[in-house]
Amino acid sequence: MHQQSNRDFHDGADAGRGFRSDNASGIHPAVLAAIAEANIGHAPAYGADRWTADALRLLAEQFGAGSQAFLVLNGTGANVSALSAMLRPHQAVVCSTVAHLFTDECGAPTRFTGSTVLPVPAEHGLLTPDRIDASLPQSNRGEHQVVPAVLSLTNATELGTVYRPDQVADLAEWAHSRGMLVHMDGARLANAAVSARSSLTDVSIAAGVDVLTFGGTKNGLLLGEAVVFAGTAAGLAMARDFRYIRKQSAQLASKMRFVAAQFVGLLNDELWRRNATAANAAATYLGQQLSSVAGVQLVHPVQANSVFATMPPAIALRLRKDFGANIWEQSTGVVRLVCSFDTSPNDVDGLVAAARSTSGDDPTACD
Amino acid sequence: MHQQSNRDFHDGADAGRGFRSDNASGIHPAVLAAIAEANIGHAPAYGADRWTADALRLLAEQFGAGSQAFLVLNGTGANVSALSAMLRPHQAVVCSTVAHLFTDECGAPTRFTGSTVLPVPAEHGLLTPDRIDASLPQSNRGEHQVVPAVLSLTNATELGTVYRPDQVADLAEWAHSRGMLVHMDGARLANAAVSARSSLTDVSIAAGVDVLTFGGTKNGLLLGEAVVFAGTAAGLAMARDFRYIRKQSAQLASKMRFVAAQFVGLLNDELWRRNATAANAAATYLGQQLSSVAGVQLVHPVQANSVFATMPPAIALRLRKDFGANIWEQSTGVVRLVCSFDTSPNDVDGLVAAARSTSGDDPTACD
Amino acid sequence: MHQQSNRDFHDGADAGRGFRSDNASGIHPAVLAAIAEANIGHAPAYGADRWTADALRLLAEQFGAGSQAFLVLNGTGANVSALSAMLRPHQAVVCSTVAHLFTDECGAPTRFTGSTVLPVPAEHGLLTPDRIDASLPQSNRGEHQVVPAVLSLTNATELGTVYRPDQVADLAEWAHSRGMLVHMDGARLANAAVSARSSLTDVSIAAGVDVLTFGGTKNGLLLGEAVVFAGTAAGLAMARDFRYIRKQSAQLASKMRFVAAQFVGLLNDELWRRNATAANAAATYLGQQLSSVAGVQLVHPVQANSVFATMPPAIALRLRKDFGANIWEQSTGVVRLVCSFDTSPNDVDGLVAAARSTSGDDPTACD
Amino acid sequence: MHQQSNRDFHDGADAGRGFRSDNASGIHPAVLAAIAEANIGHAPAYGADRWTADALRLLAEQFGAGSQAFLVLNGTGANVSALSAMLRPHQAVVCSTVAHLFTDECGAPTRFTGSTVLPVPAEHGLLTPDRIDASLPQSNRGEHQVVPAVLSLTNATELGTVYRPDQVADLAEWAHSRGMLVHMDGARLANAAVSARSSLTDVSIAAGVDVLTFGGTKNGLLLGEAVVFAGTAAGLAMARDFRYIRKQSAQLASKMRFVAAQFVGLLNDELWRRNATAANAAATYLGQQLSSVAGVQLVHPVQANSVFATMPPAIALRLRKDFGANIWEQSTGVVRLVCSFDTSPNDVDGLVAAARSTSGDDPTACD
Repeated sequence: MHQQSNRDFHDGADAGRGFRSDNASGIHPAVLAAIAEANIGHAPAYGADRWTADALRLLAEQFGAGSQAFLVLNGTGANVSALSAMLRPHQAVVCSTVAHLFTDECGAPTRFTGSTVLPVPAEHGLLTPDRIDASLPQSNRGEHQVVPAVLSLTNATELGTVYRPDQVADLAEWAHSRGMLVHMDGARLANAAVSARSSLTDVSIAAGVDVLTFGGTKNGLLLGEAVVFAGTAAGLAMARDFRYIRKQSAQLASKMRFVAAQFVGLLNDELWRRNATAANAAATYLGQQLSSVAGVQLVHPVQANSVFATMPPAIALRLRKDFGANIWEQSTGVVRLVCSFDTSPNDVDGLVAAARSTSGDDPTACD
Repeated sequence: MHQQSNRDFHDGADAGRGFRSDNASGIHPAVLAAIAEANIGHAPAYGADRWTADALRLLAEQFGAGSQAFLVLNGTGANVSALSAMLRPHQAVVCSTVAHLFTDECGAPTRFTGSTVLPVPAEHGLLTPDRIDASLPQSNRGEHQVVPAVLSLTNATELGTVYRPDQVADLAEWAHSRGMLVHMDGARLANAAVSARSSLTDVSIAAGVDVLTFGGTKNGLLLGEAVVFAGTAAGLAMARDFRYIRKQSAQLASKMRFVAAQFVGLLNDELWRRNATAANAAATYLGQQLSSVAGVQLVHPVQANSVFATMPPAIALRLRKDFGANIWEQSTGVVRLVCSFDTSPNDVDGLVAAARSTSGDDPTACD
Repeated sequence: MHQQSNRDFHDGADAGRGFRSDNASGIHPAVLAAIAEANIGHAPAYGADRWTADALRLLAEQFGAGSQAFLVLNGTGANVSALSAMLRPHQAVVCSTVAHLFTDECGAPTRFTGSTVLPVPAEHGLLTPDRIDASLPQSNRGEHQVVPAVLSLTNATELGTVYRPDQVADLAEWAHSRGMLVHMDGARLANAAVSARSSLTDVSIAAGVDVLTFGGTKNGLLLGEAVVFAGTAAGLAMARDFRYIRKQSAQLASKMRFVAAQFVGLLNDELWRRNATAANAAATYLGQQLSSVAGVQLVHPVQANSVFATMPPAIALRLRKDFGANIWEQSTGVVRLVCSFDTSPNDVDGLVAAARSTSGDDPTACD
Repeated sequence: MHQQSNRDFHDGADAGRGFRSDNASGIHPAVLAAIAEANIGHAPAYGADRWTADALRLLAEQFGAGSQAFLVLNGTGANVSALSAMLRPHQAVVCSTVAHLFTDECGAPTRFTGSTVLPVPAEHGLLTPDRIDASLPQSNRGEHQVVPAVLSLTNATELGTVYRPDQVADLAEWAHSRGMLVHMDGARLANAAVSARSSLTDVSIAAGVDVLTFGGTKNGLLLGEAVVFAGTAAGLAMARDFRYIRKQSAQLASKMRFVAAQFVGLLNDELWRRNATAANAAATYLGQQLSSVAGVQLVHPVQANSVFATMPPAIALRLRKDFGANIWEQSTGVVRLVCSFDTSPNDVDGLVAAARSTSGDDPTACD
């Protein structure tokens, strides 16, 4: 049914439930209810309201009593402001070549911080100390070179894999021993924690991350992310002036209570965990089913809520047309499918059936 | 009753209906309903959805068929991104000394554009060609000086006054004749249009403004502003790359449909006008009533939804404590009171009664 | 005689010795000789040469054993890089409304640092704690406002006046007590020291300045300035990464020895003092003589090497045409005359005679 | 003899004539004479002098009558200001992975322009359309990605190779057909022209380059580079505001005549060509001789004034210690040797003899 309305929009993304991205999903009902409940009378702007107080308390419970959280508006804004607190313009941030902050934020981190991004090739999106060592320039040209000062890890990664707590700890140790700080792009941190059967902090701050972005938008919010500073001396020193950086980066909501109320909804009763569990489970099921279709091969381990696969062009085109599948790499034909908190087994079955039925088709006949 | 919870928060702002700011108000019910109605299934992210198409169509109806609008997240983001489209770093933006972009955005426009802000004193917040001429440096020091390239007008102004269409046209002519562009900070454009008994475009683009920000947050949205480019050669040239600037300034919402749906709610059935009319009327009534209280004197004409007045300290303290009044200038004791779309005559009567009852009081006894 | 060639160039500046600016003068012979002496064979680039070692040693002698100096290329570069070491983008630098960094550097400090400049009116170019207190915004709007973090003093000022050591100390105490740092634009520091009959450090670092630019170009160099960090904890903390900032601001000379050799020439045998003494003495004499011409009035005390005066238009035009006089302010007709290290009493006598002879003239007959 | 003083400095660079870099060389006598000749009386500052007029005329002769040149201070400043005229912050510059602007300018281009650098692997430092096509992201993610807008070529390259006119033309056609502009880092343009037996413009602007930096420092100047805009519509449009950008980037010399006079010296009588011819010839001779030493292998064609070779560690250490050889890559042991305008056959013979005599040595015995 939704295939009909789907035709109104580009790229096969649709008004039903597709697999294009977890930001194609809507607002979780409990989160929308939290917004409505906060809509009573007037409240102080810019965060001096009780919903913000509640949200910050709940975030501190997740990330350690001493940690300090700030609510911001979107993922790019979260990265840009967090990195600005961590870097000076002659310093560089090291990340993977597929890091969102390098490939998908239109150079916003560079423009706002003045700093350079140094991308490092990473298998399945996962960096290791060895890979970084092999890739960073070994020579020391003094002031002629930028100074690597921040290591940025995305967890879950942009390729649907996950750093376990011990892997984060190894990388943090590598970074700290070189005087570098660790930033984590946690746009899908909930998916990572669920995947690692851990808490949110176990795959981030407790493992040595200094500054974290914690995503809400992809996990059921209308809009909203948090920037969290570790409750360490280094973390708190960076947090001190962060309210200025948040304002300068245009990430301070005036009617903050409505961002905060969403986080309260997300953190209460572990909605974050239930949403991420559903999305991860759907992706796991999708990966299993899809890999049984003739000609389909998974290209990365399915550890969070995304599935990456190569497949016959006819199937790829069909999945793009009817299910919003994203042709991730033109050259290799890798297709990305993302599950959301509301993706059902039925949704997966529908996609897999379509793939299977297309499997024998002649791609040239498909259009 | 709300005075109770009120005590929990700083500055006397409250969970009832105060007068601290129009961003202390909540979401208009029709806007919240529009969000809920858009919360069906999945939709393409980043603006490729039908709510965004509708919102842009409605904005084009307001600002002229050729105009181009882009939805962004907040007022600082709107100004920062709009100015970035208009300025190169060796150029300067001329505005009033009380312009929000100069005094209340933590230098965000300067940081993001690299450009200089040149503030000019303005009576009641209103610039005139004469005032600008008298204030800008007359000497031409060539490349040693920044080049004034944009004139920014706030309408309604930060002091609650309004540029009528003819005044905007005079200033636009002044600017254009010098090769400068005109930016309008329209965080309260609806209040200006209502005050001038005009359309939204009559006090902005139709009068010569090249790039406009059109505020939703202060007029009943959860969050959302628009940047609108005039349908002129100059306007469209700047609009061409604006989607990149919006992304770089971290103002691109991924679940854009929920920003767009709010604008649909605001523009349909002229909700924007009804909301602004209510706020302006409350301010007019407040100005009239308050100025009859002994010792209270209005300091700016009440033309939109804000009232600025001097008053005995005891009254000021009482209004701050119980009604969220903002001590605008410490040195002069000027108090700002802002009405919102939901401010009722009752709310005004309550404040005025409190002011009147405090009027004879000894301020030292007030605490 | 030089009036002839003079006609080839705009603004009456000339190839003889005029009064347009101290950067119209050439290279002091001893400095040129120092360049030639350093021109032997090859030397390590970027400052790893013995001339640089000598220059830094001599600068440390002037500014205190613990101080750290870095050589840069020009005055704007010196200010831009020094301020970048002192400021983060949400912070602001407070200076006088006539500060070179605000009026004559095309917004370079703002562009490079992202920070805001807050100019404060100053009598005769001299700031006082009272004037700053009266001018800075008193309200505390939290993260909505930029944070004044650096006080910048120009010594000698752009209006030819000088901060004495006690005045610098008062301002430094004012700044430090507010958690602010003190920057000094010392493009004409030598003139200030001579005027105050003090050492270079007495009017700068010894009086509390944290970071200083020390100008060479206006005092006999081909080109070259120094950025000097006080040997205090605060100064040395900022100096630590300064080599990166110098490189990023494009102020690192590859053939550094030729910048350094000039400083060696300037600092050896107190050439800096002799040059500044000559320039100051010429200005004092010029001020005395010129003020005796009918209709001429000095507008600022002559304390360094510049004279500012109002005068009949006929005289102003004559001085501009034949002596490079700079019409400083179009509106008031104030004329600036600057003396250089090589300005002779004869040069002054020639100008004063011309002024006197023009004094009775009809300006319309002058061309 | 010079080995003695040499020991005072790091890295074996020396006060005689080494091979560390062409910026270890001094000022060509004719250039120093030109400085001295310009040191007569006063002259207008900031380029309104006759030496600057002469230099710009001579540059226009080299680069085409319609071209427009501006003098700046150093190579990083030249690149930073030129790129700032070509790029907006959401755009990117494509260059080779060994481009000076990417590896050796401490991120200055990124910081000043806000733009991203996209490095592409290049054989022997030479880009080709095919290599760029293979390396740039093929997907079009709209505003999520930066927009490649400038192709930057270094000629001669950082690895001592040279783009011939036809190669530049091919790359310019590739770029222009994609709406991109072409920047050339010509820090060693003279060496490239000599190598290609062409004029300066044949390997740059005449072949399609839009904006060029033309280096003087490495070819006999004390300090000085030029930024040259092609006399095309695109070039002249960018040139129009360049004086502001030069000032903002702190690259405007106040005593400009002394920068200009050097260019007059360099361009008169084709000194630039004689100097580059000498340096190239020395490198050719060095490459030939060195490659006959046992164990030494050239790794890039010797087309300009640099030689890159692998060699036994003992030889590398000896050449570093006594001749300033630069260990270019720690991992591969590649050594760089650069010849200057004053490098003599004798200097080369001395180095080669030392290499040969070390050849049989046991490296562990060498220290």
